[in-house]
Amino acid sequence: MPHRFARSAAAREGARLRTEEVADWLAERRAAHSFRVDRIPFERLDGWSFREDGGDLAHHSGRFFTVEGLRVTSTAGPVREWQQPIINQPEVGILGIVVKEFDGVLHLLMQAKMEPGNRNLLQLSPTVQATRSNYTRAHRGSGVRYVEYFTDRSRGRVLADALQSEHGSWFFRKSNRNMIVEAHGEVPEHPDFRWLTLGQIGALLRRDNLVNMDARTVLSCAPFPDPDGVALHSATELLSWFTAERARHDLTAERVPLGRVAGWRRGPWSIDHEAGRYFSVVAVSVRAGSREVSGWSQPLFEPHGLGVTAFLTRRIGGTPHLLAHARVEGGFADTVELGPTVQYTPENHAHLPVPPPFLRTVLEAGRSRVRYEAVHSEEGGRFLNAESRYLFVEAGEAEAPLQAPPGYVWVTPYQLSRLVRHNHYLNVQARTLLSCLTSGAVRL
Amino acid sequence: MPHRFARSAAAREGARLRTEEVADWLAERRAAHSFRVDRIPFERLDGWSFREDGGDLAHHSGRFFTVEGLRVTSTAGPVREWQQPIINQPEVGILGIVVKEFDGVLHLLMQAKMEPGNRNLLQLSPTVQATRSNYTRAHRGSGVRYVEYFTDRSRGRVLADALQSEHGSWFFRKSNRNMIVEAHGEVPEHPDFRWLTLGQIGALLRRDNLVNMDARTVLSCAPFPDPDGVALHSATELLSWFTAERARHDLTAERVPLGRVAGWRRGPWSIDHEAGRYFSVVAVSVRAGSREVSGWSQPLFEPHGLGVTAFLTRRIGGTPHLLAHARVEGGFADTVELGPTVQYTPENHAHLPVPPPFLRTVLEAGRSRVRYEAVHSEEGGRFLNAESRYLFVEAGEAEAPLQAPPGYVWVTPYQLSRLVRHNHYLNVQARTLLSCLTSGAVRL
Repeated sequence: MPHRFARSAAAREGARLRTEEVADWLAERRAAHSFRVDRIPFERLDGWSFREDGGDLAHHSGRFFTVEGLRVTSTAGPVREWQQPIINQPEVGILGIVVKEFDGVLHLLMQAKMEPGNRNLLQLSPTVQATRSNYTRAHRGSGVRYVEYFTDRSRGRVLADALQSEHGSWFFRKSNRNMIVEAHGEVPEHPDFRWLTLGQIGALLRRDNLVNMDARTVLSCAPFPDPDGVALHSATELLSWFTAERARHDLTAERVPLGRVAGWRRGPWSIDHEAGRYFSVVAVSVRAGSREVSGWSQPLFEPHGLGVTAFLTRRIGGTPHLLAHARVEGGFADTVELGPTVQYTPENHAHLPVPPPFLRTVLEAGRSRVRYEAVHSEEGGRFLNAESRYLFVEAGEAEAPLQAPPGYVWVTPYQLSRLVRHNHYLNVQARTLLSCLTSGAVRL
Repeated sequence: MPHRFARSAAAREGARLRTEEVADWLAERRAAHSFRVDRIPFERLDGWSFREDGGDLAHHSGRFFTVEGLRVTSTAGPVREWQQPIINQPEVGILGIVVKEFDGVLHLLMQAKMEPGNRNLLQLSPTVQATRSNYTRAHRGSGVRYVEYFTDRSRGRVLADALQSEHGSWFFRKSNRNMIVEAHGEVPEHPDFRWLTLGQIGALLRRDNLVNMDARTVLSCAPFPDPDGVALHSATELLSWFTAERARHDLTAERVPLGRVAGWRRGPWSIDHEAGRYFSVVAVSVRAGSREVSGWSQPLFEPHGLGVTAFLTRRIGGTPHLLAHARVEGGFADTVELGPTVQYTPENHAHLPVPPPFLRTVLEAGRSRVRYEAVHSEEGGRFLNAESRYLFVEAGEAEAPLQAPPGYVWVTPYQLSRLVRHNHYLNVQARTLLSCLTSGAVRL
């Protein structure tokens, strides 16, 4: 199975749409629908309001999600206690890609999907991207196309299926099922959907803001062949290191009412940090033709500044390795997950005396060391203009020693792809970078 | 490595103590120390009291653990909402066994350890059983013997290391590190410790109340050889089934003050369920010579009735399989873990119109079908006289169909032993039964 995906990753063109035609097809779908997203003050939200008891921002049906407060206390790290708004959406959604062979090569059924928070609105998405509210019809709209491949076992063969975390800084313990299913029989191709090889998607991942976050996280779960290289640490050593990292962090994350979150101020158009850092909670109204319902309004989180998300990479004994970081995020279900070497929004750290570890190495790397660079959007259904520069940067012993500092570990891409078969090992940013490897967008 | 453990499991006698001498050695250690556990009313607890604000039962130092309340709501299952007392102990402890070869066979360094809640007080325990309070000296007693093998990487080679859950019905999101470390160099043998082969421990696991819970959970993590049998479900299918089980359960577990837990009543000696079911919270005073400190008092949870915990087993295509159950317990960090086929205290279900699934099959099985049966104690540091009958019971198609009912799945022991390398797949009861397989106490 890893070799079938490797063959698809090697296929630069597919049996259907040519790679160079994808941008035109997306533009055509964008034109075919009429999308419009406008900022609105909170009081113009339809169906949403601040609860009288505590001030949480919630939908009157009790569904979708709520914006609440979180108080985090930690026994380690530079900041030991903070409060922030957080999205609480306890249900588990499905992010799924249907795959099928054409001419002996696996193709993935990708969707042109609008999300209100993406700057260009429409990006390449998984076949299915459904909250449980979606497919149980809380939206009171039409059903979710192709969802039956993920809910009815008789429709296909499951190739990957694991719960993966969403952004732990903005979501409270939110996970989605990430699934890849090989369809049995004919699959009708709706105009908003196209079959592409993994290699075509890899080529598209080298462009900015084209492959959405939900697609990237599912792609990271594609089986990845063992390149027969020797890893610096055995599987048992790696698991033991990770267990120790989870064990040594005592983190308490407790929800508090949004109206009583210290350090944040609510205005008519936004809720902001008192120093203007991190993010704001805002509201938008959405008009769309192709979405499950024709119009709605909702809150979104709008981060301040462009993120920088990067793996430092080097060959160890001839085998490519990545420097992973055991990250604590307040919304993680399990305290710690493996993240990239660097995952920061530099502006948020500008007031601190020392820059975060490895950030300067990434920011100051010469072109010859940058193996991959593209700007990608985070989840456009919850976040507004949330973008990060994603990079792979080659490093040497001086910047990234073999003896990694506490909290960091050298791993091979294959080791990461074994871990991602299980829940909550890799955070969503690490999975975006892993998807660049499974799809061949970058080869180390 | 699995074969080195298999060889140790096959060794019925070791290089040191003979199996038949273990009971005498335990009796001798029991006599060497002076243990005394007495029930006391809450007001005689030393350093513990009910907090004025909310009534949680806590130690004045803020350490050890607290008894709080939990409110659980679930979208599935026979009971959709309940409240109960729960133990909150957020720190991660270490349960570890040091191993070493003698005459070419791995031996495990086991401890004769007193725990106040065990009926016979002293049982065979792991080398190290330490809360973080223990080894950071919150007890203000002596250090924990041999803990350096688990905290200092230079002292040995890690063979297993994962976070595993404690009892999800009585603990709120409590995990411990389960570790097996092969020591470098000589290891001094203290009188409370003895080297035994895995096979010797397997023989002792066939006796009642001799191998404690902490030992059993660590033993379940011993690498287990692949018997080359074909599993009914592939690894990917099994992971997908498990992911679906986690995804379909919406469970909310929120702590509430102990003094406001609905349906429970606090008296001077105990906190009890109003129908007398489930368990009581009680208090004991402890006097002991060999413990880290010479005397203390503490709360304990005392379950009502003897538990019944069993795997139904059958050969499928010649390969032994176990029927695992996706269990929801209010205190689990991740909602669902794999448990045994049956895990109930029959008295707690006597008032319900229908007995729980498979319970009658286990209770009414003829002797010829019972492949293993022994009574074991649960964690004696937190639970008083908490005992369960653990069984493996052979079943046929009539009682346990190949097409398992929703929430149940057929797995091989090897598949379970692969899962237990990772966090939170198997609950502590399933791990006790798995330890009977890794140690050869039962061969299917």
